[in-house]
Amino acid sequence: MFSNPVLDPGAGVWFSMRPMQLIDGKAVSARVLEECKGQVDELVNKGCRPGLAVVLVGDDAASRAYIRSKERACNELGIHSVKLELPVETAQEELLAAIASLNVDADIDGILVQSPTPGHIDEGAVVRTIDPAKDVDGFHPENVAKLVLEDPGGFIPCTPLGCQRLLGDYGINTKGAHVVIVGRSMIVGKPMAMLMMAKGMLGDATVTVAHSRTVDLPAVCRSADILIAAVGRPEFIGSEHIKEGAVVIDVGINRVKDEGAKRGYRLVGDVNFDAVSERCKAITPVPGGVGPMTIAMLMSNTVKACRQRRGSGAGD
Amino acid sequence: MFSNPVLDPGAGVWFSMRPMQLIDGKAVSARVLEECKGQVDELVNKGCRPGLAVVLVGDDAASRAYIRSKERACNELGIHSVKLELPVETAQEELLAAIASLNVDADIDGILVQSPTPGHIDEGAVVRTIDPAKDVDGFHPENVAKLVLEDPGGFIPCTPLGCQRLLGDYGINTKGAHVVIVGRSMIVGKPMAMLMMAKGMLGDATVTVAHSRTVDLPAVCRSADILIAAVGRPEFIGSEHIKEGAVVIDVGINRVKDEGAKRGYRLVGDVNFDAVSERCKAITPVPGGVGPMTIAMLMSNTVKACRQRRGSGAGD
Repeated sequence: MFSNPVLDPGAGVWFSMRPMQLIDGKAVSARVLEECKGQVDELVNKGCRPGLAVVLVGDDAASRAYIRSKERACNELGIHSVKLELPVETAQEELLAAIASLNVDADIDGILVQSPTPGHIDEGAVVRTIDPAKDVDGFHPENVAKLVLEDPGGFIPCTPLGCQRLLGDYGINTKGAHVVIVGRSMIVGKPMAMLMMAKGMLGDATVTVAHSRTVDLPAVCRSADILIAAVGRPEFIGSEHIKEGAVVIDVGINRVKDEGAKRGYRLVGDVNFDAVSERCKAITPVPGGVGPMTIAMLMSNTVKACRQRRGSGAGD
Repeated sequence: MFSNPVLDPGAGVWFSMRPMQLIDGKAVSARVLEECKGQVDELVNKGCRPGLAVVLVGDDAASRAYIRSKERACNELGIHSVKLELPVETAQEELLAAIASLNVDADIDGILVQSPTPGHIDEGAVVRTIDPAKDVDGFHPENVAKLVLEDPGGFIPCTPLGCQRLLGDYGINTKGAHVVIVGRSMIVGKPMAMLMMAKGMLGDATVTVAHSRTVDLPAVCRSADILIAAVGRPEFIGSEHIKEGAVVIDVGINRVKDEGAKRGYRLVGDVNFDAVSERCKAITPVPGGVGPMTIAMLMSNTVKACRQRRGSGAGD
């Protein structure tokens, strides 16, 4: 009913009656973190403090910033946080050995190796070395398969899981809806597709995965009830990609030069927010949309890992 | 150019210039088996005869028929074939123990447990017990993950692999094409989606997975350049699901009662062949389409397993 502009008979001009809804990732992530906090408290009362180890190889500035946010979130929730910083020249075997010792560390429930790693490191080998029971990023093949097989015991990558939670918390129905995902990466596009097509309340969608090879991408995107943009190209999705009344989830976090900004850049999504927000029913902003959800779901996965590893007595 | 009916100026009536092409699964499967035969001969010359073990629990008539076809294919190619028939009351542990001994049997490269198994058997546990290196059905979680991760060393389920081969052999371009898959099973729908969206010559498609929850399925199907039907409902897909000039792959094999037929039934696909073949550019028949490809790809996977297990000296 809110999907079309209507004529205002008084003013004689077109305007939109539709109140575009901003999907507030900060608010939802705060709710997720609040839930996690309760679960951590319960676990701690039972003598189990969840632990997360973050491994950084090299000194990429953006990676450092991400890691700081993760550390901060752990501290706020009372999750035991370990940061392992390795020099950029660390050999692959040393990194794998470090992971192996975290695998057997009883105080550590989650292990995350910050991406990207230096070029001489085989990220696939790194992921396969992490104990799947501690793979809170959800990238280990065992967890990839669990997602496809709809096994609830696995870990789902944090970003798609966060997108799903946003949809759920805003009461956006996915059942039977046409979800178009732009991007087919292992980190977002593919797991997002699996989540959305899985049976159940927050799935059951008709799912299309589009990408750089897609012919007439705007037309494919315009068939979406829910459009999820994960292409990594600043403001790539414009109003020509949007069906009136669609829901838009913007996964992109891109730095674009901005002389006027304090840091010399500003963050924009994969979606041209101003153009798209005119047409859509609901949209996530950047920043403040999917971004905060990713860290919140990492915390949630860490709590889940702790519960699963330390037995049903721990917090369930 | 062949996608629309044109006016015949002489006759003044509409007719179709488009020659509908039958996608001949028997012919393509014969070619695949021919290739396999060459590879088996090479392997045998090097002292390695590929071996396939098929396990049947109970005495389902259809399963017996499938197994006979598999055995026959093995015999024709010179693949060592082992059939293990277990009574319907076989306990799960006995079945798992039988698989475990096939896992360590050096003469066996591929292991397949015929589905469906009796109700007391946990099929997930069965699949996880099979050595992934011998999992020629491609259902083990490790192989599921390899397909998602686009790792060419894994085994891809035979039916979707056969569909892809049919498209390839008929020169049907998937790159950028819109492939709509109806059905989201682990055996066909999901692996088919992964294959079609993967990077490369026989992938790179824009992929939509539709299913029982899809709203306006005919409209979704009509957006397909390539429609793959895997719903398991006889003649469910009609002309209203087909865009003029689409390619249709019918995965269904359904028995419908037919008093006139010798066995009292006939086989039909998920597609209403007569109605759909009027509109489409190319279509697989049932029988004689996807069916024979499934067994051919099983042979191909068995040869691959043998080569991978017994080292690069064996046949490469």
